[in-house]
Amino acid sequence: MKEDCIFCKIVRGQIPCGKLYEDQTTLAFLDVNPWSRGHCLVIPKAHYSCLDECPDEIIAAVSKKISLIAASVLKVVQAQAYNVLNNNGRAAGQLVNHLHFHIIPRSADDGIISHAPQGKYNPGELDDLAKRIIQEL
Amino acid sequence: MKEDCIFCKIVRGQIPCGKLYEDQTTLAFLDVNPWSRGHCLVIPKAHYSCLDECPDEIIAAVSKKISLIAASVLKVVQAQAYNVLNNNGRAAGQLVNHLHFHIIPRSADDGIISHAPQGKYNPGELDDLAKRIIQEL
Repeated sequence: MKEDCIFCKIVRGQIPCGKLYEDQTTLAFLDVNPWSRGHCLVIPKAHYSCLDECPDEIIAAVSKKISLIAASVLKVVQAQAYNVLNNNGRAAGQLVNHLHFHIIPRSADDGIISHAPQGKYNPGELDDLAKRIIQEL
Repeated sequence: MKEDCIFCKIVRGQIPCGKLYEDQTTLAFLDVNPWSRGHCLVIPKAHYSCLDECPDEIIAAVSKKISLIAASVLKVVQAQAYNVLNNNGRAAGQLVNHLHFHIIPRSADDGIISHAPQGKYNPGELDDLAKRIIQEL
C-alpha cells in the first residue's frame, strides 16, 4: 500500500467507488470519468506502479478476471465489443501510478479510441529490429 | 488451429514473421503495420477468437510474457512507455479474429492513441450501474 496513491485509498475503502468485483488479489470498479458507459478498471489490490513491477502470479490472477467482468459489463450496457487497455508510463497515458487495466465497452463507429496512421518498415528493417530485440530478451 | 486464420498460419510457419519470442503457449512477433516502431503482437499459439473464449491458464501464461517482451522492445526502440491493447470484437477494432495483445511503444506527445472526451455519470447513475453489473457477475 502506498499512502498517497488514490487506488490504494480505494482498496482500503478510504475513497468510495462503484465496486464491481473483489477477491483477495483483484478489485474492479467503474471509472468515474468513463470513455464509454460501463468503462471500468481492474487492478491488483497491492500497489505496483506498472506491469513491469508486478509479479507474474499477480498478473495472472488479475488478467483471468478481466473477461469475466467484461462479460457482465457488456450485458448491462448492451455492447458487443470491448478494449482492454493498460498504459505503462506517463507518455502512454498512465495517470495513476497503480497498475490498472481499462475495460472499455465499444459499439460500431463510436470513435472512442483512434490511432495514428499505420507505418511501414523499409526492406530488411523489420528483420533487423526483431534480431536486436531478441538479443535483449 | 483454424485453416483460414492468418495468425494460425504464422504460428505454423506458413507465413513469415519478425518473430521475437516463442514458447509452448505463446508467440510474439513484430506488427508489419506498426503504430510505432517496435509495435508487436503477443498471441496464444492455439486459436481463440477473443479473450472470452480463451481458457484462464492460457490467458495467465500469455499475460505473464507481455512485460518481459515489452522491456526488450523498449530498450531497442529507446522508448520509456508502452500500451498493452487487446481488442475484442470488430467494433473494438479487432481485425484478426485470433486473440492478440498489442504492445505499443510510446514517447511523449506522439499522439499515437487518442480517445473521445471523458463522460460523467449523473448522480446515482454510477451506483445503479454498478449494482446491475454485480447482478450479472
